[in-house]
Amino acid sequence: MTGTEKDEKLPSGARIGGVTGLLIRWKGSIYKLIGLDIIVWLLFFYTFSCVYRFLLNGEQKDVFQKVVVYCRDFTNNIPLTFVLGFYVTTVLNRWWGLWNSLPWPDDVIHYLTTYLNGQDERSKLMRRTILRHVNLGIICCMRFFSSRVRKRFPSMRSLVEAGLMEEGERRMMEVMAGDSLRSMFWIPHMWATRIAHQAREENRIESDLGLRGIVDAVNGVRRTCALCQHVEFIEVPIVYSQVVTLATYSYYCALVFGSQSIDGDNSEKDDINAYAPITSVFLLVLYVGWLKVAESLIDPYGEDDADFELNWLLDRHIKVTYVTGEGLNTDFKEFTWKDM
Amino acid sequence: MTGTEKDEKLPSGARIGGVTGLLIRWKGSIYKLIGLDIIVWLLFFYTFSCVYRFLLNGEQKDVFQKVVVYCRDFTNNIPLTFVLGFYVTTVLNRWWGLWNSLPWPDDVIHYLTTYLNGQDERSKLMRRTILRHVNLGIICCMRFFSSRVRKRFPSMRSLVEAGLMEEGERRMMEVMAGDSLRSMFWIPHMWATRIAHQAREENRIESDLGLRGIVDAVNGVRRTCALCQHVEFIEVPIVYSQVVTLATYSYYCALVFGSQSIDGDNSEKDDINAYAPITSVFLLVLYVGWLKVAESLIDPYGEDDADFELNWLLDRHIKVTYVTGEGLNTDFKEFTWKDM
Amino acid sequence: MTGTEKDEKLPSGARIGGVTGLLIRWKGSIYKLIGLDIIVWLLFFYTFSCVYRFLLNGEQKDVFQKVVVYCRDFTNNIPLTFVLGFYVTTVLNRWWGLWNSLPWPDDVIHYLTTYLNGQDERSKLMRRTILRHVNLGIICCMRFFSSRVRKRFPSMRSLVEAGLMEEGERRMMEVMAGDSLRSMFWIPHMWATRIAHQAREENRIESDLGLRGIVDAVNGVRRTCALCQHVEFIEVPIVYSQVVTLATYSYYCALVFGSQSIDGDNSEKDDINAYAPITSVFLLVLYVGWLKVAESLIDPYGEDDADFELNWLLDRHIKVTYVTGEGLNTDFKEFTWKDM
Amino acid sequence: MTGTEKDEKLPSGARIGGVTGLLIRWKGSIYKLIGLDIIVWLLFFYTFSCVYRFLLNGEQKDVFQKVVVYCRDFTNNIPLTFVLGFYVTTVLNRWWGLWNSLPWPDDVIHYLTTYLNGQDERSKLMRRTILRHVNLGIICCMRFFSSRVRKRFPSMRSLVEAGLMEEGERRMMEVMAGDSLRSMFWIPHMWATRIAHQAREENRIESDLGLRGIVDAVNGVRRTCALCQHVEFIEVPIVYSQVVTLATYSYYCALVFGSQSIDGDNSEKDDINAYAPITSVFLLVLYVGWLKVAESLIDPYGEDDADFELNWLLDRHIKVTYVTGEGLNTDFKEFTWKDM
Amino acid sequence: MTGTEKDEKLPSGARIGGVTGLLIRWKGSIYKLIGLDIIVWLLFFYTFSCVYRFLLNGEQKDVFQKVVVYCRDFTNNIPLTFVLGFYVTTVLNRWWGLWNSLPWPDDVIHYLTTYLNGQDERSKLMRRTILRHVNLGIICCMRFFSSRVRKRFPSMRSLVEAGLMEEGERRMMEVMAGDSLRSMFWIPHMWATRIAHQAREENRIESDLGLRGIVDAVNGVRRTCALCQHVEFIEVPIVYSQVVTLATYSYYCALVFGSQSIDGDNSEKDDINAYAPITSVFLLVLYVGWLKVAESLIDPYGEDDADFELNWLLDRHIKVTYVTGEGLNTDFKEFTWKDM
Repeated sequence: MTGTEKDEKLPSGARIGGVTGLLIRWKGSIYKLIGLDIIVWLLFFYTFSCVYRFLLNGEQKDVFQKVVVYCRDFTNNIPLTFVLGFYVTTVLNRWWGLWNSLPWPDDVIHYLTTYLNGQDERSKLMRRTILRHVNLGIICCMRFFSSRVRKRFPSMRSLVEAGLMEEGERRMMEVMAGDSLRSMFWIPHMWATRIAHQAREENRIESDLGLRGIVDAVNGVRRTCALCQHVEFIEVPIVYSQVVTLATYSYYCALVFGSQSIDGDNSEKDDINAYAPITSVFLLVLYVGWLKVAESLIDPYGEDDADFELNWLLDRHIKVTYVTGEGLNTDFKEFTWKDM
Repeated sequence: MTGTEKDEKLPSGARIGGVTGLLIRWKGSIYKLIGLDIIVWLLFFYTFSCVYRFLLNGEQKDVFQKVVVYCRDFTNNIPLTFVLGFYVTTVLNRWWGLWNSLPWPDDVIHYLTTYLNGQDERSKLMRRTILRHVNLGIICCMRFFSSRVRKRFPSMRSLVEAGLMEEGERRMMEVMAGDSLRSMFWIPHMWATRIAHQAREENRIESDLGLRGIVDAVNGVRRTCALCQHVEFIEVPIVYSQVVTLATYSYYCALVFGSQSIDGDNSEKDDINAYAPITSVFLLVLYVGWLKVAESLIDPYGEDDADFELNWLLDRHIKVTYVTGEGLNTDFKEFTWKDM
Repeated sequence: MTGTEKDEKLPSGARIGGVTGLLIRWKGSIYKLIGLDIIVWLLFFYTFSCVYRFLLNGEQKDVFQKVVVYCRDFTNNIPLTFVLGFYVTTVLNRWWGLWNSLPWPDDVIHYLTTYLNGQDERSKLMRRTILRHVNLGIICCMRFFSSRVRKRFPSMRSLVEAGLMEEGERRMMEVMAGDSLRSMFWIPHMWATRIAHQAREENRIESDLGLRGIVDAVNGVRRTCALCQHVEFIEVPIVYSQVVTLATYSYYCALVFGSQSIDGDNSEKDDINAYAPITSVFLLVLYVGWLKVAESLIDPYGEDDADFELNWLLDRHIKVTYVTGEGLNTDFKEFTWKDM
Repeated sequence: MTGTEKDEKLPSGARIGGVTGLLIRWKGSIYKLIGLDIIVWLLFFYTFSCVYRFLLNGEQKDVFQKVVVYCRDFTNNIPLTFVLGFYVTTVLNRWWGLWNSLPWPDDVIHYLTTYLNGQDERSKLMRRTILRHVNLGIICCMRFFSSRVRKRFPSMRSLVEAGLMEEGERRMMEVMAGDSLRSMFWIPHMWATRIAHQAREENRIESDLGLRGIVDAVNGVRRTCALCQHVEFIEVPIVYSQVVTLATYSYYCALVFGSQSIDGDNSEKDDINAYAPITSVFLLVLYVGWLKVAESLIDPYGEDDADFELNWLLDRHIKVTYVTGEGLNTDFKEFTWKDM
Repeated sequence: MTGTEKDEKLPSGARIGGVTGLLIRWKGSIYKLIGLDIIVWLLFFYTFSCVYRFLLNGEQKDVFQKVVVYCRDFTNNIPLTFVLGFYVTTVLNRWWGLWNSLPWPDDVIHYLTTYLNGQDERSKLMRRTILRHVNLGIICCMRFFSSRVRKRFPSMRSLVEAGLMEEGERRMMEVMAGDSLRSMFWIPHMWATRIAHQAREENRIESDLGLRGIVDAVNGVRRTCALCQHVEFIEVPIVYSQVVTLATYSYYCALVFGSQSIDGDNSEKDDINAYAPITSVFLLVLYVGWLKVAESLIDPYGEDDADFELNWLLDRHIKVTYVTGEGLNTDFKEFTWKDM
């Protein structure tokens, strides 16, 4: 009992708790993502600062000062805020859209346990096989766009070894799909509906509507798989990403010089700045941090902290389908509604 | 009669009535949310103001003035408006989307009372049990993401005590779900469709379409439950929240110094400012208030004023299903359409 | 014939015709909404202007000038444009979303006249009663969030008097819903599907699909009713509205002083401004007008010009359902397709 | 054969081909829309310029210069960019939404030719009549919001003359709808489903699902018609349009003076400006052009170049339904699949 | 086996891998799209720079300097950032929307292999023909809006030659569609549902729901085809594109002069600028690059790098339908589930 009370471990960590809790989180945090960028920037800043102060002679200082003035002009003229604002919003919406199109076999389970509910061995086998095929189709699809899933199942043969596929099925798929496996990941989904159809013929599913319910649910899984796969086609236009990245990093570089205190500056303000360029660091945190939001979201099937843990999802699917394929109805009558 | 005329109490208070009504509301209001922040800020402001005026000597004043000038520069350079604008819009859209994915059993009630409408004891029991299971599934799901619901139902056993679950069902669930209860909250939903299927076999539901209607409605509830649960996966990226929060609070801190009146300022303007930094306070209200909008919305299942009162919702569901499971059809024929 | 050619009167007036037509409209217009605000502002402006010019002595003038300079600084620093831009867009989208979730009985009519098409008295009575119940459910729902509808139907008894409800139904509803009428407005909708089910049993509806079509349509109406009711739960966060309103009206106040011409100003520009603060008035029109857009949209079920005229909608529904319940099929065969 | 190879004429002209192609297009172009505004503006500009230079004496010149300075201040303070940006985006989204809700009879055709596929005269007549009624309902709806369609069909009698309605149907509609024709445009759609129901009774449609498919498709057409009609209810709030239009045209007027070169200006820059106010013209093109985008989109059923050509759509619908009602299946077997 | 392990070649290249990988990509990249624009701009910039420095006499230099000052004023006053931001977001959303409405025959395959699953010759022929017709309808539709597809299939006869159409079908289509082929691309889709209906009559499809599933899937393909075709009607308003393009290119031209270093400038900053106008080039990259994003997305059916490769899609569809029409079920029983 206690076991079921515990939370299962969540892949993305706990939720946010207050401002402090938010700011001290490490995983997927701003410190992890842009810490290196800031340190590198500070190194360059102090290096040039020292060079200017101690190494350069008068004429060289003049050149340096010109560069500094020029870079200040540059950083003031790049309209980074809006470009980043529009870009990040676009990327974020795409990311949520992609999450919502991940495939879940739960609908199939729902209709299967309702309509194909025999407790004999053959009915059980059919349920198990249908659910196994649904999962198999999901994995066949994900192998092509998720490097994590591909690492786990490097070849079709590894699927057989994991017990998700029979050797005969593997050979069949080889024959049918040939080198179009990417387009035809749904072959197992078709097998699943074929078995459901067989079950209807054997009257294990008692109504046409029941069969149709299962077929529709399997088709729903296939559709979301296809949507996932399309992520590579509907990527954010490369030009857009390049424009934004170029703008941000050129700002980053220009700020190394633009933040230097030089002779002739308003001395009050720049006394602090010479030793601790806080404003510049904050601007970098803001701009580079914002860009990193976009970068960590643009490839949701990658291996960043913010990316979808597809292997966790697959484990969950396999576990859930195993339980429901096997045991749901068996013990059902023994425990409850004795008065029914 | 009078009883039914009254409004039921609304969880989120009355609607807005005019500008004045809007501005004097307390619950979930700006005063409640940012009052403390403003007071703390004013404390710091006046402390530093006094220190500068009465305690510092000339040299220390110089340093202080440099800090002030530096902080002014800082506050002018942080592009807070846009960052906050984009962020708040994103968070608000997510919040509404989450509301729209809360589960309601009303669809199930609708199809159940239409198609499973017998008035004998067994039909009543079936209706009641199906609706109880639908609610049970909703609660099993919500326990994992809402601290409020978890407080109310700390364990599965508390569900049995509340009469929402039978002891046999609890044990069954333990056996089936093991430690995957989070993923398999829908086990009661499956029981519900199983009973509906049984009712079809006993011809208490007269058509396949009627059964399918009920099964689809239960599946709809399960889906929205799953969507709710996903909120933890599709959180606003932590980097984004951190960037915005850091920017706002560093602005908040810098403004403590940046708002100070120092020697050499345009005296006309700053005479007022020295004693009552109204502009700064207003800017804080605007920026911190905006950030608080986002903070109070980012975790809609929490315990803030703006969060969803899931327990109220559960009470409502239990009450509504109790009425419809029991009594809808019994008295129906006695009262109306005597001519039919 | 001529009668049918005329437009029915539209609740929201004619559409926009050209720039001039747009600018001279009164109903729901900018002049009506912000006229008073502008006049009050001008009164204050000229009062303070006269006080400054004719009543104050030198020292007092100094204080006044400081206030003016301070207020100018204030108005320049409040980033009103973006705050308002994001806010108004949010409110406007919500408003359109709410319109799209208003309930229409037309779907029910469509399926009812197709599938329950007998011309005997009992069939007619069934059609009429189903449609009456659909409308009754809509009204029961709207009474709780629309002050206009509540004024028209202050109690359940007034519904009986209006002929929308039978006395027996009223008592039944009292018994069933108790004080949960708000949550259970759909009791009449259930009655409607019960009658449809009865019609199927008497074979007045000839196919299961026909019954299901009607049941689904009634359920669709119930759903949109529920969506409408949720408007009170998914209101724009009160903090957001308060922040925007506070910012706008503090700008409004500060501008009374900030627009004054004082000694030491650039005389060229401010000669005009002293007598006719056109720029300030235009800024007010822009900002306050924009805020009013949001205010008039934030409560779409209120009694503003831009709000939904729910009573007009109810009249339309009652009229339409009356016609179709009664007469559609009776005369049908006599007039057309004699060759069929 | 060659005939079918040609493109049918598109109502909105060819698509964009490169920058040059884009910039030289006339129809619906910026030149056509804002040409007059620019010319009028230039006239005023040069008139006032000449008056200032040649007619005014010293004192009058002073007044003029004050006005110019004042207007410059005005144009710099109106935050036109954002107001226009938010407004145009809102209007554009609404416009696309409205396009997507235009009614197409193609779904009805699809289900009709599949399920009601007899080749005898009565089947053909039924198909033709159903499709005629679908189109008739669309036209009855569009007459109330599109001036173009109303010009083409000024009265119900003109529909009879065009062969879209029978005289008996016209009289029937008069009796049933009375003066609620706007709300009850769907009477022909109901007739269409009644005929389909009749066909099912005569077993010309062989399954309940076939009938339901046709009924659903007709209902889909009715729904989109209703959505179209709602455009008048969900107009962009008049206040919003007025605020934006007022702001733009006051900017337009103020710029006439604000662009004048006056004594005391930086002479370098304004030498050019005095004779060719290019910057101002470009700003006008940008702002007024943007406003025109909104104006031409705000009433999509009007008669602008960018508006929907509903008559073209109606012709297309009538043509398409004529072909499919008549001929699809007749010749079908003679030409293909002889081996089947 | 190895064959199936390989990725099929993707039309849009590999996904983004890190910042470096992002910045060095060529295909569809910023370098390819705006390289020429930048080179041309630099040519003009250096030409005018030399002319100014070495060819002009004093008086001419004065004129040149006035032009430069004027152009600087111009570039500072054009609010390009927002106009571009709103425009690009609009175009990008439309582009993704269009991708999501591309037609895929996979749903049809799914229902067809489930419900029409005979292994005799006639069943196979029916499956093959239905799928061929579905693809044929897609191609008939795409020929009218995609120049790529039109190049591949310049005439209906070329479709016959490619084996996608029979000669008899071609003649039939000619007779039926006449010169309305654009509107009636779905004639093959109707043939497909007719064959499905025939299969139901011959009891090769065993339930009405099976037939309806296939008919709905074919109708779904027809709908998405129609949506694709509408792209020409719902283009981004030409005025909007013109305003944005004009603004960007006038900025581009003005910057040629505005970036010149002239006498009297702050010498520090402009020493660098005279020889390497880096800031200006970066601004151009940003603005022109952003505009190019929009330009490359505005016509998604064109022949740019970012456009949809419809021919690749067609090949994929033809291949997939060929496999499933022929072979899916044949070998099915031989390989797996021998225990079933």
